[in-house]
Amino acid sequence: MIAVVGSGGWGTALAFHCAQKGYPVKIWAHESEVVTEINRQHTNATFLPGITLPESIQASGSLEEVLSGCRYVITAVPSQWLRSVAKKMAPLITRNHLIISASKGLEVQSLKTLATVLEEELPMVEPGAVIALSGPNHAEEVARRIPSTTVVATPILKFAEEVQDLLISPLLRVYTNPDRLGVQLGGALKNIIALAAGISDGLGFGDNTKAALITRGLAEMARLGAAMGAQTPTFSGLSGMGDLFVTASSKHSRNAWAGRELGKGRSLAEILSSTKMVVEGVTTTQAAYRLAREKQVEIPITNITYQVLFEGVPPLEGVSRLMERVRTHEMEEVVAATYTWQ
Amino acid sequence: MIAVVGSGGWGTALAFHCAQKGYPVKIWAHESEVVTEINRQHTNATFLPGITLPESIQASGSLEEVLSGCRYVITAVPSQWLRSVAKKMAPLITRNHLIISASKGLEVQSLKTLATVLEEELPMVEPGAVIALSGPNHAEEVARRIPSTTVVATPILKFAEEVQDLLISPLLRVYTNPDRLGVQLGGALKNIIALAAGISDGLGFGDNTKAALITRGLAEMARLGAAMGAQTPTFSGLSGMGDLFVTASSKHSRNAWAGRELGKGRSLAEILSSTKMVVEGVTTTQAAYRLAREKQVEIPITNITYQVLFEGVPPLEGVSRLMERVRTHEMEEVVAATYTWQ
Repeated sequence: MIAVVGSGGWGTALAFHCAQKGYPVKIWAHESEVVTEINRQHTNATFLPGITLPESIQASGSLEEVLSGCRYVITAVPSQWLRSVAKKMAPLITRNHLIISASKGLEVQSLKTLATVLEEELPMVEPGAVIALSGPNHAEEVARRIPSTTVVATPILKFAEEVQDLLISPLLRVYTNPDRLGVQLGGALKNIIALAAGISDGLGFGDNTKAALITRGLAEMARLGAAMGAQTPTFSGLSGMGDLFVTASSKHSRNAWAGRELGKGRSLAEILSSTKMVVEGVTTTQAAYRLAREKQVEIPITNITYQVLFEGVPPLEGVSRLMERVRTHEMEEVVAATYTWQ
Repeated sequence: MIAVVGSGGWGTALAFHCAQKGYPVKIWAHESEVVTEINRQHTNATFLPGITLPESIQASGSLEEVLSGCRYVITAVPSQWLRSVAKKMAPLITRNHLIISASKGLEVQSLKTLATVLEEELPMVEPGAVIALSGPNHAEEVARRIPSTTVVATPILKFAEEVQDLLISPLLRVYTNPDRLGVQLGGALKNIIALAAGISDGLGFGDNTKAALITRGLAEMARLGAAMGAQTPTFSGLSGMGDLFVTASSKHSRNAWAGRELGKGRSLAEILSSTKMVVEGVTTTQAAYRLAREKQVEIPITNITYQVLFEGVPPLEGVSRLMERVRTHEMEEVVAATYTWQ
């Protein structure tokens, strides 16, 4: 029995995937109309349109009902709500639970990763029993049964492999990685770069421009990650480069969409109020901006995205600043620390 | 005065860029009708449609005419023709020339990079005076003056900076990198992964699938590159990850297009005969396949692409093999060598 806490697109797609594997699945939804819709019509039209869910998925607005009898709890609520939901889960969680954190973001107030938030609120679980799930996974495609890959991360091998076995299927290849921090940061920070890439697209710039932004974007993600204690190679993997690719290049991404709307001249407030979906990159930009100041790490793309989002810098000026020459003779960032000239 | 040898899309776009910077530019074209069209109509409709060229660009079918009085020679001919063109250039080249190699491929017979081919055929130039130019550059976008970045690579700093100064503009940011081999391999090998990504798209798979292919694809590019003596970080830069992104995600790429057509069931011969453009990835796949055998490097995506292109393996079977589990418990490739579990 698997509990999915959160009925957004990704939570619903994960419930769908688990049900396809034959597990009984219960899903907790914040909105009572979503509970009713899943139970009666077997759809979640707002958050995962066009998909008919297996009848074996039962929805409820009661955490007690959803969590009872489950070893596996997948959390998939927006990152800024996670702590309050986890507080409500706490009385129902025991040492026997494995918590799979599937949201992508950072808690903006504390600047903490979501696995840390869960560990703080659910101290009764075993060490390492909060597992991060992250990778290049558009919910729409996982629900349409398109071949996908993802990563489960915890420093404890037995838990990583247990969750890998739980979720793996011929259509969803699950890899393990002990660098839970890096895997989470990849999934969170890539939304910032996707916003920036979307802004560039919205301004009418090209694929060449976007390639430059995401290449330098991945380098700054890895730089901030390393300063926080993550392993650099993780950012070259599925939860770093892979997820950045899928988010920045795809029509499905909400963050890239929000960026494009900004690039076209709409205001942030207008964009956010026009969708029920959460645009995680907006709060993640705030968190990363502050984290980089604390750690004294240079993250120019994030800083410019922050200025466009929150300080009224016009998108065209922002992207132009990024593409402008700093100095005439500039080496490629990736090699500057490594090589010498003859 | 700048000579551009080769009038395909990229050669023409580079001539356009140099002319915009105010340099006199001469371009050598193999086809006499292209010479006439550039000189009379100031277009190159076959290879760079929709672009009007500055009248200052003069085309000729005579290498002698094009090369006379130029310090800078940009070569942009298909990789398999480069050696024969370079042989014809040799009597006209002196110690004073800088050769900028702008094609992306490998010489399939010798398995050599194009800078090596040029050095062998033009031994009179100074050491390091063959400079590789590579990066995320769709010719169409550079010619449409969309902000772009690129890399010039040679171990000799003064030549790298001279070419950087020559080509840099507010619309084309030019970075330097001493790892000429890595920069060339990034530009060449990425076409193989773009073919594979195109096949996946042509079969109707999704962005999740493609993200997995290009993430693992970049890892195998870097692995083969390292075995050949390139620097691994170069593959995380503009000429590696950046160029792979732009080639695999964009509608402009010929290699991704050829892959999509393969995925839809057309034969390679049919695809290649339906376009005047050279699909460099096809010969590069042959070269990389053989190089990896020699060096004993595992490059599964290249191998499957080779089997689809040349051994009749159906595309669906090829991509399915790649996405299939090798074993249940698989760590992420990027970290497998680095970390240990608790």
